[in-house]
Amino acid sequence: MSDTDVTQSPPEAEELPHDTRLDEDDRLKPEFVSSVLDHVEEGQDEEARDLVRPLHPADIADLFELTPSDRRASLAGALGELVTAEVLSELNDYVREDLIGALAPEQVAEFATQLDTDDAVAIIEDMEEEDQQAVLEALDPEDRAAIEDALSYPEESAGRLMQRDLVAVPEYMTVGQVIDYLREHGDLTTDFWEIFIVDEQHKPIGTCQLSWILRCPRGVPLSDVMKREQTLIPVDMDQEEVALRFQKYALISAAVIDGNGRLVGMITVDDIVHIIQEEAGEDILRLSGAGEGDINEPIRDSYKSRVRWLVANLGTALVASSIIAFFEGAIEQMVALAVLMPIVASIGGNAGTQTMAVSVRALAMNQLTQSNTWRIVGREIRVAMLNGFTIAMLIGLGVGLVFGNYMLGLVVACAMLINIVVAGCVGVMVPVLLERFDQDPAVASSVFVTMITDSMGFFAFLGLSVASGMVSLG
Amino acid sequence: MSDTDVTQSPPEAEELPHDTRLDEDDRLKPEFVSSVLDHVEEGQDEEARDLVRPLHPADIADLFELTPSDRRASLAGALGELVTAEVLSELNDYVREDLIGALAPEQVAEFATQLDTDDAVAIIEDMEEEDQQAVLEALDPEDRAAIEDALSYPEESAGRLMQRDLVAVPEYMTVGQVIDYLREHGDLTTDFWEIFIVDEQHKPIGTCQLSWILRCPRGVPLSDVMKREQTLIPVDMDQEEVALRFQKYALISAAVIDGNGRLVGMITVDDIVHIIQEEAGEDILRLSGAGEGDINEPIRDSYKSRVRWLVANLGTALVASSIIAFFEGAIEQMVALAVLMPIVASIGGNAGTQTMAVSVRALAMNQLTQSNTWRIVGREIRVAMLNGFTIAMLIGLGVGLVFGNYMLGLVVACAMLINIVVAGCVGVMVPVLLERFDQDPAVASSVFVTMITDSMGFFAFLGLSVASGMVSLG
Repeated sequence: MSDTDVTQSPPEAEELPHDTRLDEDDRLKPEFVSSVLDHVEEGQDEEARDLVRPLHPADIADLFELTPSDRRASLAGALGELVTAEVLSELNDYVREDLIGALAPEQVAEFATQLDTDDAVAIIEDMEEEDQQAVLEALDPEDRAAIEDALSYPEESAGRLMQRDLVAVPEYMTVGQVIDYLREHGDLTTDFWEIFIVDEQHKPIGTCQLSWILRCPRGVPLSDVMKREQTLIPVDMDQEEVALRFQKYALISAAVIDGNGRLVGMITVDDIVHIIQEEAGEDILRLSGAGEGDINEPIRDSYKSRVRWLVANLGTALVASSIIAFFEGAIEQMVALAVLMPIVASIGGNAGTQTMAVSVRALAMNQLTQSNTWRIVGREIRVAMLNGFTIAMLIGLGVGLVFGNYMLGLVVACAMLINIVVAGCVGVMVPVLLERFDQDPAVASSVFVTMITDSMGFFAFLGLSVASGMVSLG
Repeated sequence: MSDTDVTQSPPEAEELPHDTRLDEDDRLKPEFVSSVLDHVEEGQDEEARDLVRPLHPADIADLFELTPSDRRASLAGALGELVTAEVLSELNDYVREDLIGALAPEQVAEFATQLDTDDAVAIIEDMEEEDQQAVLEALDPEDRAAIEDALSYPEESAGRLMQRDLVAVPEYMTVGQVIDYLREHGDLTTDFWEIFIVDEQHKPIGTCQLSWILRCPRGVPLSDVMKREQTLIPVDMDQEEVALRFQKYALISAAVIDGNGRLVGMITVDDIVHIIQEEAGEDILRLSGAGEGDINEPIRDSYKSRVRWLVANLGTALVASSIIAFFEGAIEQMVALAVLMPIVASIGGNAGTQTMAVSVRALAMNQLTQSNTWRIVGREIRVAMLNGFTIAMLIGLGVGLVFGNYMLGLVVACAMLINIVVAGCVGVMVPVLLERFDQDPAVASSVFVTMITDSMGFFAFLGLSVASGMVSLG
């Protein structure tokens, strides 16, 4: 790592080499990527390494992600020792699997020993059972035990996220004794932000930020500095809940406890930031039925998850179509109905999606709970009424004028109002009900909501056309 | 704050009072909320305070958010001194504005002095100009200068986020001298995770985690412990970029520099976590046209942002309708076309939304850059081809059988394939192009993509029906 890689240079030093590699959004520049790949292709490994050496591990990981998959192995070969364990742990899961598949178990084990338990686990957990065993056998017994222990917890749980290296001391120590203890134990982890105070049974009883220790005279007992209340994370807690808890209570690190309340690990916020980002971004992908939604995912996996969604939506589209089929006779009498009916359905769908997106976010952020469900439903219906009247007036007047048929205008306006209000209702009720039945509201809501807004759009418009006497059922 | 508030109790202590207030997802239980509000309504303020006292400030903030807006003022009155500055800074923006509107400027100023600059700014920046002035005048000169300085930076910039209280020391100090300095200066901030090393011009030249200092003997010079490379944040950087940088380089805190490269503040990760969450979650709201998408937003604001979107979509729906109108004659000859055409449009829309969601996420996370645009476009087209063939086969066979018309089945299958492939193309190209022209891809993509998939769906299906000779233009 060099001096300049991630340093944002002050304006007067604009020509620093940093700028030749990264653009203003910290993305690798395309010229830089292709120049590295050109050197690799031409066998000029040394030149490629010189270019890449100043990069931060996170940027080297980006370089691999930006490289076409069939050229990643030769890039890794050329870069040699620049591909560190840290680079691997920063890689996108799919790209990492890709790269690791090309390595011998001993090499993977070598990488794993250089990482904190949590990062090593992240690398190993995605491997095939067989390869995993080979890597574990190549590890020294202590690392192996730690990683096997982590793998014994469910995927995406606190036990997988936590690191076992932490500083835990008894309550009777003084500030000076803690400092001496830290100075004497060179094998302790270097990245920690607070120390945990434990009782004889290794149960956490308090926590102490390093800044508090640094500001106190040596003689002060730890029990006077530490904070007794703290947020504990049960080892089997789901990572999404861990992330929400970190966010809610603004934590930097937190103690992880086992079923008996004993301290077994620590989670730090830098491991959580990725999860917060992922979880918050996942809703948009789930709501759109895009599966993992990762651009590095193998095409076959993307196809599988997306086609399943399209088939489900084909089902809902057929339901809506069967409603149109019921009114075929009416459409034959007035083809204008066929022209206008998709508008009613489509705007209703948009209105439903708006309410649904808001509700899914609010549920995910624990803002929409049982205490305020009815208030929020009422709120959404009022917004829907306002939207409904506005759009109904616009389309009603427009249709009346263009078609010179004010009855048609009135019918389309009423249908639009009905559909937008229904959309507002189901846009919030469907996600809330799914959550109440322990289903992920982001996954299933949109199939239901679209089916209802499409069907209701066609039914209200065609039904009102018949009811108004403009056309008959045929 | 009490001992039990946020402490997740180990299993054997299940009956701790904590469980009567919060459910397993750290949400306040509805019974608890209504029992507090009942006490307030009946004038039993003391009982209400006893219930609320053990809560963490973040949970008291939640309590206000879950309370209907017309009852928040009386809740605040009843809770009295339990409504701390910290509670205010944890509140949702809209709810806070609501509450603060009811307070005198002196009270707001009193709150502001108790907070770090960044949190005080967050409270004051949303107030009306006039009220802001009143609060600033009630502050003591030092706090006032710091807050006015922060307000001089653009909204959502690093300058608004940073706190001015930090520890900066010269390079020539030893570890022991730093510890003595910290012990002697009681007025320094208590929440910091690293110290910054600056030159005579107050430009940052290095950084040192507190854990590194704690582990070194007193005599070691700081220059041997500190890390010279560090990530600096320009004071005018947008908060979204700050968040990406924190995430990419796994930062706990970072130095903020002015245009001359001088250290002016520090940003810590706990202030960033909210932004990462917000920014990642915003895409879903923008893509759905739901504006801020906050359930606490005043109804009028929600109406304004959502109706604008619906009107835009009305425009695109009219474009699609005009294509149907062009084929009116054909539909008159075969009403089955009117029954089937929404299916082609709707599944195309779904396929487009999938690709668009994936692309918008990848752009937001800097994974889709100029270096790999064409590779990703190719990838999406291949996924779209697979999806297209699958769905086309299903619908083609189904229609052929149900309608007993294999030509109609072939036409609908071809139209479906075309529309899904077009959807895949535009689903990635539209967001990429918008980003290239410095527009937010999440905001505008979906109007364009929907318009294209709807129009193409109708055009391909009705056009092929005519081209196949099944029907004529009329």
